[in-house]
Amino acid sequence: MNDLHNKFKANKSSILKEFPTLQPLDINSKSIKKKTKDVRKKIAEIQEKMYANNKYAVLICLQGMDSAGKDSLIRELFKDFNARGVVVYSFKTPSTLELKHNYLWRHYIALPERGKFNVFNRTHYENVLVTRVHPEYILNENLPGITKTSDIPSNFWNTRFEQINNFEQQIVQNGTIIFKFYLHISKEEQRKRLLRRLNKPKHLWKFSIADLNERKLWNKYLNCYEDAIQNTSKDYAPWYIIPSDNKEISRLLVAEIILEQLQKYTDIQFPDINKEVEENKNKYIHELKNEPKD
Amino acid sequence: MNDLHNKFKANKSSILKEFPTLQPLDINSKSIKKKTKDVRKKIAEIQEKMYANNKYAVLICLQGMDSAGKDSLIRELFKDFNARGVVVYSFKTPSTLELKHNYLWRHYIALPERGKFNVFNRTHYENVLVTRVHPEYILNENLPGITKTSDIPSNFWNTRFEQINNFEQQIVQNGTIIFKFYLHISKEEQRKRLLRRLNKPKHLWKFSIADLNERKLWNKYLNCYEDAIQNTSKDYAPWYIIPSDNKEISRLLVAEIILEQLQKYTDIQFPDINKEVEENKNKYIHELKNEPKD
Repeated sequence: MNDLHNKFKANKSSILKEFPTLQPLDINSKSIKKKTKDVRKKIAEIQEKMYANNKYAVLICLQGMDSAGKDSLIRELFKDFNARGVVVYSFKTPSTLELKHNYLWRHYIALPERGKFNVFNRTHYENVLVTRVHPEYILNENLPGITKTSDIPSNFWNTRFEQINNFEQQIVQNGTIIFKFYLHISKEEQRKRLLRRLNKPKHLWKFSIADLNERKLWNKYLNCYEDAIQNTSKDYAPWYIIPSDNKEISRLLVAEIILEQLQKYTDIQFPDINKEVEENKNKYIHELKNEPKD
Repeated sequence: MNDLHNKFKANKSSILKEFPTLQPLDINSKSIKKKTKDVRKKIAEIQEKMYANNKYAVLICLQGMDSAGKDSLIRELFKDFNARGVVVYSFKTPSTLELKHNYLWRHYIALPERGKFNVFNRTHYENVLVTRVHPEYILNENLPGITKTSDIPSNFWNTRFEQINNFEQQIVQNGTIIFKFYLHISKEEQRKRLLRRLNKPKHLWKFSIADLNERKLWNKYLNCYEDAIQNTSKDYAPWYIIPSDNKEISRLLVAEIILEQLQKYTDIQFPDINKEVEENKNKYIHELKNEPKD
């Protein structure tokens, strides 16, 4: 597959319903897994270089409806990584400490150090998704002038989009590479996955009654996602809409997009060896070999 | 004094050399101190209300040439504060951890919780001041594409101004009130203060040989300050140029500007008393008074 970036990248007029939730591939499940493994190994190699190079960082943002496959994607994608090289933040309901600060604060703190990959499992975008579907959550932020949901001004969400764009632009300008993936599943696929959770004892812990309530708001969520994606998919921080009804294909696409894009950063290389070290290498070897015993 | 905001606020064409470093007042030193005390008490009262109100936060940014009086201003301004209500961050050379992140990271973390005053003693503006006078410091940030100072592109500083404006605008939009004070002293006044440091055993620890070297770069710093102030003094986060050759007057002006501006936030009030508590107050009193002994 070539140029996945352009195939799956969203833009300001992307309509989610027009994007497929399933991407048929001409290869079987075994080949998909094998290919994913090859790709993720190459990404891990780039991460090693990036760590030594110490200039870039990578931020991977994962969003999707419940059961879209975020957790298992993380589990699979980083299997060949040096654990040192990747940090996963799963953002849940904000803590009371986090609510004392503006909504971007906890995400800012969690940004990757140079040389590392950080993954946001659910992201700062929840602040224009779950809080938009449930505007009463905004009241927890105690914003000046907003004491009831009817106080939320009509330009509130557009202002947030702009704040998020500025936030992302600034970190990109300072050396972070951002990937934003929307794992796109159909409502029918979610129904199957929730049923599986209910029927498998090992998966039952993941089921919550809230899942069914949120499912009823499917279209509201879809509209909010669409508006967010349209307003924040930028060249410097694009959104990719990943067909995710098949998890294996979804993971392969994500991995390939990351690899494809990172390979464009040809300046991610191991640093040059210090000249002094190179010239005197044999001397150092000699010294160590002939070190007197204590 | 009235409308100090308009008198001392900088705008996009402010020329530092045209701003006085001394503001004569018609009152004597004792009256200045007395007045400063009154004002700071009123600010402390507003902070108490702000804490209970739990909607706004205040960020006070202090910049100025070495010996401009930042430390002593902080010491004096918050004397009547509840210690719970104010947090001072003195930003020095970035640590190795901080240098692993983008330059705004350590400042973002240090933003005030709602209800509190945080003071930045030297601020994120050092990233367009000291690093501009000494561009070799930028190399510590390991930015992609910048391995020597000649790699720094001509729009680098303007991009930073924009990043800083976006950063400040976002936190203002989410309930933080920002004050930025440039403590403006003359070069001659700095000479006197450095001599005092050298001559007073108790103050000698504050003297560093670097101070003399930086002093030689006075005009470079002044130009960088002027450019930064012109580009980042916004209605939502204004710069104030405070005549500071006289420290007592400088402190009074800063205090009065803070008070004058905060008084405009008429929605900073103690929260309404819970109706249930109000209606049943006498019942609770009765209960507590007649509590049986254990």
